[in-house]
Amino acid sequence: MAYFEDIKIGDRREMGSFTFTAENIKAFAAKFDPQPFHLDEEAGRKSVFGGLAASGWHVAAANMKLLVASFRREAEEAIARGEKPVVSGPSPGFRELKWLRPVLAGDTLSYASEVIAKRTLDSRPEWGLASFMNTGTNQRGELAFSFIAQGFMLRRSADKG
Amino acid sequence: MAYFEDIKIGDRREMGSFTFTAENIKAFAAKFDPQPFHLDEEAGRKSVFGGLAASGWHVAAANMKLLVASFRREAEEAIARGEKPVVSGPSPGFRELKWLRPVLAGDTLSYASEVIAKRTLDSRPEWGLASFMNTGTNQRGELAFSFIAQGFMLRRSADKG
Repeated sequence: MAYFEDIKIGDRREMGSFTFTAENIKAFAAKFDPQPFHLDEEAGRKSVFGGLAASGWHVAAANMKLLVASFRREAEEAIARGEKPVVSGPSPGFRELKWLRPVLAGDTLSYASEVIAKRTLDSRPEWGLASFMNTGTNQRGELAFSFIAQGFMLRRSADKG
Repeated sequence: MAYFEDIKIGDRREMGSFTFTAENIKAFAAKFDPQPFHLDEEAGRKSVFGGLAASGWHVAAANMKLLVASFRREAEEAIARGEKPVVSGPSPGFRELKWLRPVLAGDTLSYASEVIAKRTLDSRPEWGLASFMNTGTNQRGELAFSFIAQGFMLRRSADKG
């Protein structure tokens, strides 16, 4: 994480990749989205997805997992440089979640996040609000998942901690 | 699930409720969103959430879990009436995900889904596209979570199965 002042529109964060396996697809689906095409290869093949397909919420949760790991690496790097890691703020919401292509067993998505907007808030002088286009691209280079995330970020001027 | 022709704007589905416990909040967070305020009571209390807070993706996944259970009950009822259950279609995406209030350990959200728009598609005559306002309301009657879901629904005229 960085302070609000430290990011600029166009900044891009590569968050790494996640491989969806039959095993992790079925385990997530059994807990949160037990539809046949997420649980059974044959049902998946017969569905509009054409194969055992990851739940859209699994695709989104994998994005979050990589984002947090990416924050953690940055915090550790900051500490190693003798700096204080910046605490991330809450999110007021996300927009335009799109599952553009099926994510099937064996697919690997590479996730990235790009700053697309930022603004200060009169009502909350200690925070800025930034918007990010988050994407998941499969091993064939096809965009499979995207959404616009918004997050509050501490302003450097306000962080007296 | 119903056919596209069988739903109308304003139709509301109560999907039941889900209680977020310290245990299930931490289990989800450890897997997909390992931020301190989702993993540790003390870190939660010191955060903007004011307590051990569920990951936003956990709040969303619980919604999906109840939606699928609700579909399943309806399918079983259809079969009990001697009817063929209707297969649900894929979703092209969701809009306006909002986490309006923290969901803390001990909170129970009641989820509902209301039809807010529907239209036919020239490009896909076998499907209609419906939009739903999905909400999660806590035990104090406060709206904590909402998003607009879109889903393709089979048209009765197209289902020759």
